[in-house]
Amino acid sequence: MLFSIDRSLKTSIQQQLRTKIVSSVIDGQLVPGALLPSTRSLSRQLGISRTTVVIVYESLVEDGFLIAADRSGFKVNPDYPAEPSSSGPVLNDAVVVNWPSRFAKRPGKQANISKPADWQSYPYPFVYGQPDPALFPLPAWRECSRQAMSELAMRDWSSDAIAQDDPLLVHEIKTKLLPRRGIFVSEDNILITAGAQNALYLIAAQLVEKGLKVGMEEPGYPDARNIFDLNGADIEPLPLDEEGALYTNGAAACSFLFVTPGHNAPTTIPMTEERRLEFISKARQFDQILIEDDYECEAGYLDRPLPALKSLDTEGRVIYVGSLSKSIFPGLRLGYIVGDRQLIDELRALRRLMMRHAPSNNQRTTSLFISQGHHDTYIRKLNRIYKARRLMMINALDKYLPGMRQGSNFGGTSFWLKGPDGSDSRVLAREALKNGIVIEPGFPHFLDPRKHLNYFRLGFSSIADKKIPEGIRELAALLKL
Amino acid sequence: MLFSIDRSLKTSIQQQLRTKIVSSVIDGQLVPGALLPSTRSLSRQLGISRTTVVIVYESLVEDGFLIAADRSGFKVNPDYPAEPSSSGPVLNDAVVVNWPSRFAKRPGKQANISKPADWQSYPYPFVYGQPDPALFPLPAWRECSRQAMSELAMRDWSSDAIAQDDPLLVHEIKTKLLPRRGIFVSEDNILITAGAQNALYLIAAQLVEKGLKVGMEEPGYPDARNIFDLNGADIEPLPLDEEGALYTNGAAACSFLFVTPGHNAPTTIPMTEERRLEFISKARQFDQILIEDDYECEAGYLDRPLPALKSLDTEGRVIYVGSLSKSIFPGLRLGYIVGDRQLIDELRALRRLMMRHAPSNNQRTTSLFISQGHHDTYIRKLNRIYKARRLMMINALDKYLPGMRQGSNFGGTSFWLKGPDGSDSRVLAREALKNGIVIEPGFPHFLDPRKHLNYFRLGFSSIADKKIPEGIRELAALLKL
Repeated sequence: MLFSIDRSLKTSIQQQLRTKIVSSVIDGQLVPGALLPSTRSLSRQLGISRTTVVIVYESLVEDGFLIAADRSGFKVNPDYPAEPSSSGPVLNDAVVVNWPSRFAKRPGKQANISKPADWQSYPYPFVYGQPDPALFPLPAWRECSRQAMSELAMRDWSSDAIAQDDPLLVHEIKTKLLPRRGIFVSEDNILITAGAQNALYLIAAQLVEKGLKVGMEEPGYPDARNIFDLNGADIEPLPLDEEGALYTNGAAACSFLFVTPGHNAPTTIPMTEERRLEFISKARQFDQILIEDDYECEAGYLDRPLPALKSLDTEGRVIYVGSLSKSIFPGLRLGYIVGDRQLIDELRALRRLMMRHAPSNNQRTTSLFISQGHHDTYIRKLNRIYKARRLMMINALDKYLPGMRQGSNFGGTSFWLKGPDGSDSRVLAREALKNGIVIEPGFPHFLDPRKHLNYFRLGFSSIADKKIPEGIRELAALLKL
Repeated sequence: MLFSIDRSLKTSIQQQLRTKIVSSVIDGQLVPGALLPSTRSLSRQLGISRTTVVIVYESLVEDGFLIAADRSGFKVNPDYPAEPSSSGPVLNDAVVVNWPSRFAKRPGKQANISKPADWQSYPYPFVYGQPDPALFPLPAWRECSRQAMSELAMRDWSSDAIAQDDPLLVHEIKTKLLPRRGIFVSEDNILITAGAQNALYLIAAQLVEKGLKVGMEEPGYPDARNIFDLNGADIEPLPLDEEGALYTNGAAACSFLFVTPGHNAPTTIPMTEERRLEFISKARQFDQILIEDDYECEAGYLDRPLPALKSLDTEGRVIYVGSLSKSIFPGLRLGYIVGDRQLIDELRALRRLMMRHAPSNNQRTTSLFISQGHHDTYIRKLNRIYKARRLMMINALDKYLPGMRQGSNFGGTSFWLKGPDGSDSRVLAREALKNGIVIEPGFPHFLDPRKHLNYFRLGFSSIADKKIPEGIRELAALLKL
């Protein structure tokens, strides 16, 4: 029997049947002119209603896959485009071309954070940066998506906008998101990107050349380090103290300084106001550019967070990077850059070559999601949950892993822990996984990973409250082995 | 009055009112604790139903923007997060930083195709690559989007997939799209990109180094030339004859050859089978990599198109680039690369740094759109329309601009025209625009634009049938001036 229905699947019976018939026609299992089972017999065979079969058959007639045949039967449309010859060779990865010798770069060889692809299936997922999908305001997003897809709205955005962004989204960022961070700019100072990561990539590709020095926090965001490194930069580590990154002598020799002043990735330590003013004034003195990644700025739910470093910038020396993926859903891939108009113009031209623009349907849906207040509501909801969960984490950590967590008054969604000297977080992560606990080894955050194998990160955005004490207790038991 | 309703807008009254109240709360015009107009008075003032006002107020209570006050009034939630100081400086683009001296590249200075941003408002839009939004099967796309956004499906894709693609979309490409082009590969040979342009950018960033020679058709796709150029390549022009690009002596010295064998961009001339075999065998002889952009392959509605060049490749020397934006809607930005596994692995790592992945909601919606046959139905519908429109174009061109169009038996959505010697298509485009006619000057398609100012392109995917003869007649009149 060609068709079968799986009632355990989340897709509707109608959709399953339609998909199967379409596949059979396209891949030639049902040849042009072939008669389909009658609606009566198919409904009986599959144990589904005859109406469902009729609806599916008729929609396929309308779409040209089937035609109505004599006496209410249905046939595959004899005019259905004949299949191309399937005579091509099956590509085997023949070892003829020496690919590695042709690679201009080796991004695949860089150290980076990794987590199991199926982390959602583990009972204790202390992963970072993945909000719980169950908390997402799906009805509100759906409604915004529906509005964005109305026929008239679609005319606005279905075309390739070449180099332009959705003006509605730029407006929301300018009027609602940036003012909260103390940033007041015009539309021409804003560029939409495919996530904050893409923003950093664009900035590095546009500005960084082989041999230029880029300073960044140690520990710091590994993806940023990898991006600068890929573009040929020499990385200068800026050590952290309890006030944030230090402006060292080495910093003075850099062309660019990449910082996360809101709260350091990964330790979550915010940079104090005094330190920020030092960075701004030294950057002026040494004619440097500061790149500020204000990631997760919306999760500063403890002490009131300082405005962005960019808000202290009167010379256009700070390039500001923001993210919408983090605060909506990470798979969305939307972020933005705020900077000097000359820079934004050039980055726009570069983005045109790289991808033209972020998908316009998502830009429009997101602008509606923000303008109608759903983004705010969602953030407030998440912060209430994170605040409570953070306390549970503190209680469990102080009980089972005392002295290991590094302090910060930011809030956020993770803790940074220093394991016992000589311990190896790679081993710990492996053992933990066997026990259903997902943790992130911390060494990729360091320029010299080998000296920092004892650090690790515990995220709490995806783990259920009640799993926290249990998970931390189990983890502590593994550390004692 | 704070709120007003504009009945001429396409957004609903409810949505307009909600958006306005949210904005006023967020930007502090309505301060925490402020009393809102009563539902009765607001409905009277705005001339809308009281129920609408009640619905909006209540949804805002639910979302924490408002609270219910005494005697059925509504107030701004006094706990609404106090506004951050708006004390930051307004960023003026101070000429302090010498930005141009800091640019590692100047993408903004490259020659490229341009069209007026408001081309949709002109009566004769002979633009290329922008399908008519009125033809798009909006209900089918909406239904797929709805299915992709169901709660269960969303759990699959709302997380950041880091480096992975939606397996359902990869499956559809592998089983439905590639076999039609004679390509049979495994999932590991496929990488999803943010459009075909992004595919070319990734390939160039991964493989091209300063001083390497890249051959490409002359005329050819300007964005590809700009991408290779930006990565430091020396461009070697491959002249065209009626069989497609020529494999010249210069071609033999190249590391990479970029070709559009399906139909040359912009002339629409397909490469013959003999010529394809020559490229494959020479590439083997000189150990070269061929980059095949199979753009608009679905629009080969005249003679049956040849399978892709990739289908002749037994050594993994051909990197194949396909697009989904062209055949669904250009603003979607989805494409794919097919290549050797070693190359795909490295490109995946590079894409992880550049943007992680294409937005996962769009990947899922697109996979459903293909699997349920809507993609096929849409392409068949477009091709019927394009076929008829192409004949109208030929009739009008042969009547009013005889001898100017370059022949091709592919189909497609445009004509390439050679204007009179000495004519300047930039001047023609400018004059045409004044008369409501949008055309594309052809010179950016050439390595040396100055010698080819008389070429131009007329697209016919966005222009209404009945406008064609009139538009061409007017254009011809301008050319005779």
